[in-house]
Amino acid sequence: MGEFELIRRYFARKQPTSSSVLLGIGDDAALLQLPADEQLVVSVDTLVSGVHFLPDAPAERVAQRALGAAVSDLAAMGARPLWYTLALTLPEVSEGWLERFASALAQRSAELGIILVGGDTTRGPLSLSLTVHGAVRPGHALRRSGARAGDLILVSGTLGDSRAGLESLLHPQTAERASLDWLRERFYRPEPRLQLAERLASLAHSAVDISDGLLADLGHILQASQCGAELEVTALPLSQALLDFTPDVETREHWALTGGEDFELCLTLPEQHWEAARQIATALDVPLTPVGRILSAPTLCLLREGQPITLPSIASGYDHFRSQHGR
Amino acid sequence: MGEFELIRRYFARKQPTSSSVLLGIGDDAALLQLPADEQLVVSVDTLVSGVHFLPDAPAERVAQRALGAAVSDLAAMGARPLWYTLALTLPEVSEGWLERFASALAQRSAELGIILVGGDTTRGPLSLSLTVHGAVRPGHALRRSGARAGDLILVSGTLGDSRAGLESLLHPQTAERASLDWLRERFYRPEPRLQLAERLASLAHSAVDISDGLLADLGHILQASQCGAELEVTALPLSQALLDFTPDVETREHWALTGGEDFELCLTLPEQHWEAARQIATALDVPLTPVGRILSAPTLCLLREGQPITLPSIASGYDHFRSQHGR
Repeated sequence: MGEFELIRRYFARKQPTSSSVLLGIGDDAALLQLPADEQLVVSVDTLVSGVHFLPDAPAERVAQRALGAAVSDLAAMGARPLWYTLALTLPEVSEGWLERFASALAQRSAELGIILVGGDTTRGPLSLSLTVHGAVRPGHALRRSGARAGDLILVSGTLGDSRAGLESLLHPQTAERASLDWLRERFYRPEPRLQLAERLASLAHSAVDISDGLLADLGHILQASQCGAELEVTALPLSQALLDFTPDVETREHWALTGGEDFELCLTLPEQHWEAARQIATALDVPLTPVGRILSAPTLCLLREGQPITLPSIASGYDHFRSQHGR
Repeated sequence: MGEFELIRRYFARKQPTSSSVLLGIGDDAALLQLPADEQLVVSVDTLVSGVHFLPDAPAERVAQRALGAAVSDLAAMGARPLWYTLALTLPEVSEGWLERFASALAQRSAELGIILVGGDTTRGPLSLSLTVHGAVRPGHALRRSGARAGDLILVSGTLGDSRAGLESLLHPQTAERASLDWLRERFYRPEPRLQLAERLASLAHSAVDISDGLLADLGHILQASQCGAELEVTALPLSQALLDFTPDVETREHWALTGGEDFELCLTLPEQHWEAARQIATALDVPLTPVGRILSAPTLCLLREGQPITLPSIASGYDHFRSQHGR
């Protein structure tokens, strides 16, 4: 089977129709109609086997993880997903692997409301690169650069789960089965906070998705906004599954601050909008937790019950080229 | 140096400003303004070291080849280049390599009129994936599916040069230096036929860029248009450098038909538009050569001076998963 037959067979089928896709997979390029009076949001995300997922990860999980991580960048901008392209590099053609991968990708695409419009398949070490496209109304994009002194810092969902899920895959665990399954689901199947971001876009001053860890990603906001922050570590939202997984408080805080890849949102907004934001989050059934405040001084301070602390071995988040643990 | 610092240092700088780029590299995603009343054209292209370029290819050449190949897909649609994203996977951080790569990429981007708006850098075996974006007026996109019986088949430039350039890199050659340099330039630095395609868009019925070889890519037109064709092998446009490079007629024809990666255009248009097309090509100083005709019967016939022939060992073009020669 040739490369083109391969792409056509596995990816072109099952694509939903949309009035925005004038020409999908199968020509030299896709031809797309952006909704009238909207702006285009574009982001690219690469996942490499052995770096971003375990070499023996099931095909379905690779698809779910790749798409969730990529679409999370659209959520971080408050954008509505539209289309994506997939560059897939494979060491060999395994029809079974491709079948499972493509089916999971199609299902997750439908759930996230995004359509595959182009692909390239090449031979090489397993990796995926997705370029995702979304739309946002002019003036409604959430940027990193809008934080102001006095803003509350909010995070959605819970933190540290993805890191715990990875740990549970790397090392045998004694935690109860239900917690392990839930944590692994958090690692394997990121849930971009699309609706929450879109509805908070008019209230928030800045936003980022937590892919590198809260400290690193909040750091991106602080750098872009030229300000600082204080974070209260006892306020970090932790899941019951994470509490079940490890009794060690320091480990939990460390994972919540630096674990990364939870793909939750970190937003800042003025205090007077907190009640409205809280109601939106409640209506969507997504936890939204104040964890600190933006300061004008360009430093990031950690507090425990209001007192400044220094956590041991806090790195500045997850960084592929610094990482020593082989992820 | 961290990953983010690396991206920022090498790629964010030197980016030209454009009113279409509201927010470029540095946020979770780029924020872009599509020109009013235009449609979006999107294509993705991956290049893997050892598959699409030689493992020891200079950084400048990797950049030139990747961008030229990707933008050629926009030319094949008759689209005007706007923006692209780059997913770069590197085995290690070499500042010297990155510096040369980024400089060449910035220069070639400026020449082709396309702006880098997003990137992701990961650790792994060297590969690049570019997603290119362009604009086209409604109704003016060149598709593969519009060929009709009686259309002339035209190709731009000359064919087989890129394959000869690769051969000259793989095997020591006796051809004269100037020819070798020119052929290698054709291999390393594809020149997308953007202006020609844009100006022929209203005359042509169908188009494709020749990345997999004329036979394979014309085959894509025939499949999409549900028709056939006859090709006159003595009409194939060959460069003087290719003639200098190999005296073997069969080898030249084979490379011209199947060598691939010349990134020339193959278009079909009704005979009454040939004179207008010829004048446009002449004005742009790009060779444009009729090489055959579209037929209603769904077969592809090769002719030599009008007589049907079968060339030995003609494969259906370049295919990564079939290729045996290690490219």
